[in-house]
Amino acid sequence: MGKTRYLPPLRRSLAAVSLLALLAGCQATPSDALHGTGDLGVVVERATGSLAVVDTSERRILERVEGLGDLSHASVKFSRDARYALVFGRDGGLTRVDLLTGEITHRVMQSGNSIGGAISQDGSLVAVANYEPGGVRIFDSATLAPVADIPATYRDEHGETVRSKVVGLVDAPQNRFVFSLFEAGEIRMIDMNGETPEVTRFPDIGDSPYDALIGPDGRYYIAGLFGEDGLALLDLWHPEAGVTRILPDYGRGEARLPVYKMPHLEGWAMAGDEAWLPAVGRHEVLVADTDDWSLVGRIPVHGQPVFVMSRPDERQVWVNFAHPDNDVVQVIDTETREVIRTLSPGEAVLHMEFTPKGEHAWVSARDSDRITVYDTRTFEVLAELDSESPSGIFFTDRAHRIGL
Amino acid sequence: MGKTRYLPPLRRSLAAVSLLALLAGCQATPSDALHGTGDLGVVVERATGSLAVVDTSERRILERVEGLGDLSHASVKFSRDARYALVFGRDGGLTRVDLLTGEITHRVMQSGNSIGGAISQDGSLVAVANYEPGGVRIFDSATLAPVADIPATYRDEHGETVRSKVVGLVDAPQNRFVFSLFEAGEIRMIDMNGETPEVTRFPDIGDSPYDALIGPDGRYYIAGLFGEDGLALLDLWHPEAGVTRILPDYGRGEARLPVYKMPHLEGWAMAGDEAWLPAVGRHEVLVADTDDWSLVGRIPVHGQPVFVMSRPDERQVWVNFAHPDNDVVQVIDTETREVIRTLSPGEAVLHMEFTPKGEHAWVSARDSDRITVYDTRTFEVLAELDSESPSGIFFTDRAHRIGL
Repeated sequence: MGKTRYLPPLRRSLAAVSLLALLAGCQATPSDALHGTGDLGVVVERATGSLAVVDTSERRILERVEGLGDLSHASVKFSRDARYALVFGRDGGLTRVDLLTGEITHRVMQSGNSIGGAISQDGSLVAVANYEPGGVRIFDSATLAPVADIPATYRDEHGETVRSKVVGLVDAPQNRFVFSLFEAGEIRMIDMNGETPEVTRFPDIGDSPYDALIGPDGRYYIAGLFGEDGLALLDLWHPEAGVTRILPDYGRGEARLPVYKMPHLEGWAMAGDEAWLPAVGRHEVLVADTDDWSLVGRIPVHGQPVFVMSRPDERQVWVNFAHPDNDVVQVIDTETREVIRTLSPGEAVLHMEFTPKGEHAWVSARDSDRITVYDTRTFEVLAELDSESPSGIFFTDRAHRIGL
Repeated sequence: MGKTRYLPPLRRSLAAVSLLALLAGCQATPSDALHGTGDLGVVVERATGSLAVVDTSERRILERVEGLGDLSHASVKFSRDARYALVFGRDGGLTRVDLLTGEITHRVMQSGNSIGGAISQDGSLVAVANYEPGGVRIFDSATLAPVADIPATYRDEHGETVRSKVVGLVDAPQNRFVFSLFEAGEIRMIDMNGETPEVTRFPDIGDSPYDALIGPDGRYYIAGLFGEDGLALLDLWHPEAGVTRILPDYGRGEARLPVYKMPHLEGWAMAGDEAWLPAVGRHEVLVADTDDWSLVGRIPVHGQPVFVMSRPDERQVWVNFAHPDNDVVQVIDTETREVIRTLSPGEAVLHMEFTPKGEHAWVSARDSDRITVYDTRTFEVLAELDSESPSGIFFTDRAHRIGL
């Protein structure tokens, strides 16, 4: 019943030491030490520069990993085997954490200031978006050895070659990365299939792209524009068609928010043929038809939305809000388009994450030092977990999803 | 840097035995023995009643697990933590296999003849669809302890209470299971949220439902009918609306195939607003609009399609075929709706599985005793793996997807 080619060194050595181990009181049976990684995740603890490793089946914190540097606005991706978290720190630190041992396996300070990253479709590469110096750096995802350095250079209005901040970096099918250049007003695509990275430029997409998203099928890349109305869309099935403007009224007539208060695009909920997105500067969630990008609904909500996230079965959309309305989460029924529940998970609700099949939602409340786990059917609180200044929550099923 | 609350017994004992272990030549470092489970999967080897445990990053067979009984037409689901495979054997055997150790942890003979199963949304329950005796049995997914036994009884045309074969069992959001009764012509839904299972019956859905599917968002349950044309659809957002008939021309004018040769519904590709499905008795793949279920395309292909599966980015659909055309796989571009490649993976191609982000496809060729791994961008053969009579291929990311 199953010759174990899988763990031969451990098995053999366990046989060899079993008597000694017994004498020493050793309980080291390998199957006790093993753990599936499908129900794990991490919560970023920004004040302490730590990660809480969590188990979504037991709904508890398994351990805490420290020494990750400045984790304000940090984000996390997972390795292809869902064992390692790649943590992108604001200070330019890139750290690889083993969820099974709680150890940092590799860490590099790869820039002065970075804003997130992505893992390639095949899992072999990790790319980081850097503000300072502006560009993308690409590393081997297992060793963090450098693979490529792609400065975000462009010519400014004086004809000088300068570097732009990079934002909105995502992975796309066919081992490509796509990102936007804030000062340059460009989208760029890197194809990693050849000997050297092949960069395609899409200039003049609009003023100051500040964030971007890619849809769940990896076809459409959409960048938000800080300096003007509407959004820039690139169809990755037809990059030759260039970038088009969608939702031209998005943001129109609104006073611009500070860039760090602009709604997150990552939070867009794509549900069926509809995209649910946060309005700019208004207490509204917008619904757009993704066939022609017309606006088909406006739903009044509690405050300025930040993240608008779809439960995996697309029956609910959960919304959190900007300061000073950030002590509330609202749940919208996607069929009736009505707010069906207002939850109070604590002060400064920063992020939400659904379990892979959507039965639970985990919500972080930074100023209450608390993570709350909700049953999404009954809205019952299933657990409250102590965590110092929790922000982003990321579960390992993201390893298997395009653009997450 | 990371107090390891995670593995305390092993860590403590390793510290205690480290000197002894060293003397004994022990290399038992726990991190070597650990393995993420996000890139694992299994291939059903029907002739030998075994499972090949595979690693999709290294593209190799890690080990072989034997003693699983009759695996003809067997299917597999994964535990919530992606560590355990639940194997549904044709002989009524239900087996729980630890992918990390290659051991069978639990095994029960739960009926005389079964046809697949499902794991509940929260991961706690496993349900099995039985032919003999007809019904659904539900077990604790960790221990295989019985939880509920739900016979598929109905009144036949003589007024006798008899049992029906159960087919098309799937998990649905809200911890429900949905299945069909072949002889009774019914769909039933079990709600597992209360103290006892609550069964809702949908009678008179049509003659002889033989298989079913649920869409990726868990909203629509669709049963294929062996005895008449069209398909039966239940909207799980509105079960009170009852079952409606869709695609009324589906199968019309075709001589019925033997039931075991009818196209698999599990194989439907849902891509955007379109469903791609195998025609009955014709060498065609059909395309339907999922808004109104009108037929919008017919694509001529090499033979009678069996599985029609969408690459995760929905740009390609891969198709295999019934005997005697079963030595070929065709790839259709979903945009142009043209066959762009015909592949020859071997004799008797039974199943295909995409890696989670779609960069590779694994294809089993039963009579060539071979699994072939393709790059889906270049169609290059990346690996050929020896496997005795391989059939179904299942990767662990299914643990995180509704209805898979």
